Parts: sequence; structure tokens; C-alpha cells
Amino acid sequence: MGTTLDTGVKLVRNVGRYNIGAGSLDELQPLLARRRATARGQGDSAAVVFLVDEFFRGDNRLAERLGLQPGDALEFVATADEPTTAGIDAVVATLRRRGLTQPAAVVGMGGGITMDTAKCTSNLLANGGQAADYQGWDLVRVPGIFKIGIPTVSGTGAEATRTCVMTNPVSGLKLGMNSDHTVFDHVIMDPELTATVPRDQYFHTGMDAYIHCIESLGGSYRNAIGDAYSRETINLCRQVFGPGDMMAPERREQLMVAAYLGGCAIATSYVGVVHPLSAGLSVVLGIHHCVGNCIVMRAMQDFYPAAYDEFWRWADLQRVHIPQGVCAGLDDAGFEALYQASIVHGKPLTNALGEGYREILTRERMRALFEAM
Amino acid sequence: MGTTLDTGVKLVRNVGRYNIGAGSLDELQPLLARRRATARGQGDSAAVVFLVDEFFRGDNRLAERLGLQPGDALEFVATADEPTTAGIDAVVATLRRRGLTQPAAVVGMGGGITMDTAKCTSNLLANGGQAADYQGWDLVRVPGIFKIGIPTVSGTGAEATRTCVMTNPVSGLKLGMNSDHTVFDHVIMDPELTATVPRDQYFHTGMDAYIHCIESLGGSYRNAIGDAYSRETINLCRQVFGPGDMMAPERREQLMVAAYLGGCAIATSYVGVVHPLSAGLSVVLGIHHCVGNCIVMRAMQDFYPAAYDEFWRWADLQRVHIPQGVCAGLDDAGFEALYQASIVHGKPLTNALGEGYREILTRERMRALFEAM
Repeated sequence: MGTTLDTGVKLVRNVGRYNIGAGSLDELQPLLARRRATARGQGDSAAVVFLVDEFFRGDNRLAERLGLQPGDALEFVATADEPTTAGIDAVVATLRRRGLTQPAAVVGMGGGITMDTAKCTSNLLANGGQAADYQGWDLVRVPGIFKIGIPTVSGTGAEATRTCVMTNPVSGLKLGMNSDHTVFDHVIMDPELTATVPRDQYFHTGMDAYIHCIESLGGSYRNAIGDAYSRETINLCRQVFGPGDMMAPERREQLMVAAYLGGCAIATSYVGVVHPLSAGLSVVLGIHHCVGNCIVMRAMQDFYPAAYDEFWRWADLQRVHIPQGVCAGLDDAGFEALYQASIVHGKPLTNALGEGYREILTRERMRALFEAM
Repeated sequence: MGTTLDTGVKLVRNVGRYNIGAGSLDELQPLLARRRATARGQGDSAAVVFLVDEFFRGDNRLAERLGLQPGDALEFVATADEPTTAGIDAVVATLRRRGLTQPAAVVGMGGGITMDTAKCTSNLLANGGQAADYQGWDLVRVPGIFKIGIPTVSGTGAEATRTCVMTNPVSGLKLGMNSDHTVFDHVIMDPELTATVPRDQYFHTGMDAYIHCIESLGGSYRNAIGDAYSRETINLCRQVFGPGDMMAPERREQLMVAAYLGGCAIATSYVGVVHPLSAGLSVVLGIHHCVGNCIVMRAMQDFYPAAYDEFWRWADLQRVHIPQGVCAGLDDAGFEALYQASIVHGKPLTNALGEGYREILTRERMRALFEAM
């Protein structure tokens, strides 16, 4: 630790409460019943807004499991693209049109996209205005509607963080609504919900937690509690992705815990080389965040040699597919766009490589890295 | 994990927010200023109640560092004995007499005794009645006064838990006020505050975190998130108490994090053999909890052999004193009292030894264990 620098992050908000364990989803209805009763007692709306990953659209037990009641809203969240400010605004506009401006709760159930959508929606309902108004740091004025997060894919840590990442197609800005008010009031972690995740996606998303913590512990800006969360997240990933089936029930529970603790680590730490390059792939090629991180790992041998070896050993062991050659066929302008969209992330690159990161990650070096992906 | 049993603990409340890092105490005054302003805006009292470990009585910069204002209460908490229901009631009565029934915040600054006193006081001011009324589980009806915890000794995890342990001298009951409302709203972890802790006490208290996690991971009732917190707590303890000075600044920060994460582990896990026997020493001989645990470790070679070795290696390395022979001179009635006060803790003993724990911990065995201390 001797030569590391302080992250400067001094104040962290935690998730209010959490449920953990197989069958925890059964706790949702009693929790909502209490929220509804309190709202009714105050003369407020007892309606609940459910924002659910479109993956569950065909689940005919869904309404029953959620305890859907007349007057509630159930909206499915499309996951083909990551959240945009316009997409969030459309969800909020629909709810406002239906008079759901002060529901008793907003429930987000799904992967990172759905949870981020729920967090933004809750804040916007309570604060008014549009999503783009709050892209940045600490712009949300009042607490959002009581929000409940139910992850159904493990890895991003969105269930534990104070941001919800959105792309603004007009400004081109990919920036979160970073606020203590963005943190979920309640999180339900039920590993039964991840049993049906496709294996490749399970691995790609799980690696988001691992990669973040590798970058964090490999950086110069450090924090004692962030380091602790990161170490244990990596330790759990080793138990999940080593020999044996990564999707065995006890491993799905471990990965759910790893994702949550990885999210707690994010609060006080910075990423490194992987995330900026993955953001480049996202902005230029529309590649989703988690699979993007895995693709970037193809070129990370020089930067994170031990994690590189471990990552590819796991990918082999678990027989998962990581796309290859995604930058083949790009022209000079394409590589320039990738360079620009990556090098802009000065803070994590400084964390990983020092102030002179531009001399290390030259245009030529960056192009070679992207070509190796 | 295969043959372990579920702890049955499914719902956990987290500390609301925390500050971490050297100098974090400077964040107290801005935080209180916001609380006072909000209270004034609502026409409520802007006074703050400070309950501070008597260790700081002679600190002539204390009032300045706390931002003490006219109308606030500053009460020093005696630490010769662990909290009693009568002692808590006396603190609350003093505050009520001074009209401080709804202060803007209750601040507890000190070791486990002081933090537990602050947690109880906050709950009692808001809920009325007496401390003994709330000994048990989930008896606190409404949230307490906004409570801030500032640990100045690391180990008990009182800054993160949902209990505040009290002895009732009338009923003889040593039982906490276990409630989600007991959890601190805000915790300030400033490792500069532990620089002046006497070395023996620093070690004894730090070992509370270590021993709890050893017991927890050695038990049959397990929980994925509790296990994760416990493993990292132990990992941090290894960095703190191994070769080198356990009180170096970066190690004091690590132990503060270990104590907090150890407290988070407590929420979903059970202790084992050490805590029941330590409770026996406490009830019969008035020995404080943390040093009691260390004394019990003298007799734990058969039950926790690896932890036994590690514990005594650290005690040697760090040149700390663990009292010895504390039961010498006890008569048969004394040993019987120790047996009774220990064997009553069925849940942790079952966790450690199974349902047949009484056949393992016979009167004779227990007497031999206490004699070895």
C-alpha cells in the first residue's frame, strides 16, 4: 500500500436493506404490502411500478410472483440497447400519463440495464424534468420514489451502486445519474432467478465484477474498504469460475454476493485500462458493456498479466464464447473513433498507467490493441 | 459448503452512510450542520446529544472538534462496566429532564460500550419507556433519533450491527435491543482516533472481530454473504497482526475496516464456542467481553486449532498481555455458575458442535476448560 494514493472518496451510501438466499423473491410481496399500506395511510397512491427485463415477458407466473394489483404498472424493459436518456424519458412519460407520478414503490427486476432504468425512473418521478438534466454528479435534489432492485443476472453491481448509466444520443454523452439518491432502498438477491441465464451471458456479466476489481486493485488510487470489497469479490469469482459448473446453485449464490460486494467496491475505487477501451467498443460499435470487457481482455496480457491468464483459463474451463475480430474491417476513421472514445477516460487511465498514459497508449498502440481483439 | 445449513437470516439492514479515512472526523460538523438546519426548518430542536467515551474527558479540543453548541448535551460514558439497563435509563432520564426528547441527532463516540449506549439512547428517546422493555428481538416500534457512530477502538463491530447489548441487574438478563432501528444512520471511521488506544486493549478488541469470524466460518449454519464478510475480516486481521507494528497508521485503517465488515458479518451469522464461554466469564466474574474472548482462547486448541495457533502467534509477535488464571480460587459453586452461564447459549453451541453439544461440553470438560484459562 505504501506508494498508493488516496481515492479521495470519503462518503459512501449503502443499500438500505437486502434479502439474500434462494427463495428471497417471496419477500417482495410482504414488503410491498407494507409500502402500500403506509402510502394508503398517508392518503397517497398505493400503486407500484414494476420495470421488468423483457426476458420475463413470456413468464405467465410473473404477475402472481410480483403480486401485481389493479392500478399498478408493469412495463417491460428492452435490453437490445443499453439505456438512453430518450428511452428513460419515454418510460417516465408513460407513467406520468397514467397518473403514476408518486407510486408507493418502483421495482426493477432484471439485469444491469433494467436496474439502471428503474433507478433513473424513480429519481425522475420524484424530481421532475428529463433524464439528461441529471447526467453528472449530485444533481438529483430530493430522494427518489422508494426503489427496490431485484437482480436476475449477476455481475454489474448495479444493485449496489450510486449511478445509472445512460447514453444521450443527442450530446453523445455516456454518463450516469451519480447521486446518493440513486442507491436502492432495498435489494432482493435470490439466486434462483439466475438459473435460466444463458451460459455465455452469465460468464460475460460475472466478469464485469471480476474485471472491475482487478483494475481497482491494480491502480494507484486506493481505499482500504474498496480494496477489501475487491479482494473478496475476486475470491468469490475464483470459487465460482474455477473447475466445476459455474452455474451450480451454491455458485450462483456466491456470484450474486460477489456482484453485490463488487458494486460496494465501485463506490470507493476507480477502474483501469479495460473499462475505457470497452467504452470505446460500446460507443463506436454498440457492443454491450459486459461482453465488451471480455473482448478487451483479449488484449490485456501486457497490462494485467495474472488476470489475463486467469480469465482465459476460466473461459476455457467453463466453455464459453468470447467474440473475436470485432474490429476487423474498420477503416482509419473507425480506429480513430475508437481511440478518441477510449482516451477520453483520463481518470481510470491515470489510475492504471499514471499521468503519462497518453505516451503509453499512443494511437498506434491503441490500434494494435483493438486489432488484437 | 455442501453439508452446511442455512442461517435462516434473510433480511439485513445496512448502516445508511459511512465516511472512511484519516481525517474523516472533520466531516462530522458539516453533517450535523445539515441535520440542525433541517430540524430548525421543521420547527424542531436543533440540539445534538453527544455521548462520548470517558477516555476523552480530558481532551480540551473535544468540544471544538465536535462542534458543541449551546443547548447541546455532552455526556461522558463510563466504561468500567459494560452497559446496564439501569445505566441507559439514567442517561435517558438526564436528557429528558433537560428537555432533549427529540434532538436533531445522537452521536456516540467511543468503543463498543459507548456506541451501544448511543444506539439504545436514540431508540429510547424516540420510543419512550425503559431499556428493559426492548431487550429482545424487534420490539422497537419507530425509528430512533438520527444516530451517528464514531468508533475510537476497532473490533466489536458495534458500528455496523443491529444490537446494543445490555445487562439487566434485576432479571440477570444480558440481552440486546435487536432491531433494524438500532442500526446507525451514519458511521464515521477515522483511523486517527485509534492512535492513542493502549496496545493491549487494541489487540483484545481487534480480536473480537477475528474470533467472531473464526467461529462463524467454523459453524454449520452458514450464509454466502456472511461467509464473504468473515473471510475478508480475517484476511485484514492477518495484515494487521502479522509481523510489523499492528498500530502503524495503515494498519489502524485496515483494522477499522475489518471491524466494520466483521460487524456486517454478524448480521447473518452465529458465533461458536468462544462467545458463550466468554459470556460466562462476563456474567460470573465481570470480565469485559473482548478480553474475555482472548482469555477463552487459552482453552480453544481442541475446538479451533488453526485459529488457536494464529492467535497466540500474534499475541507473541505484538507482545500483548492476555490475563491468565482468572478462575483460580473459584469453588465448586463458582464453576457451576460458569457452566450454567455458558451452556445456556444453545444456538451458538449447536452451530459449533451440533445438537449434542451438552454431551461434548460436560460439566467436567467445561471446568477443565475454565481451569486452563
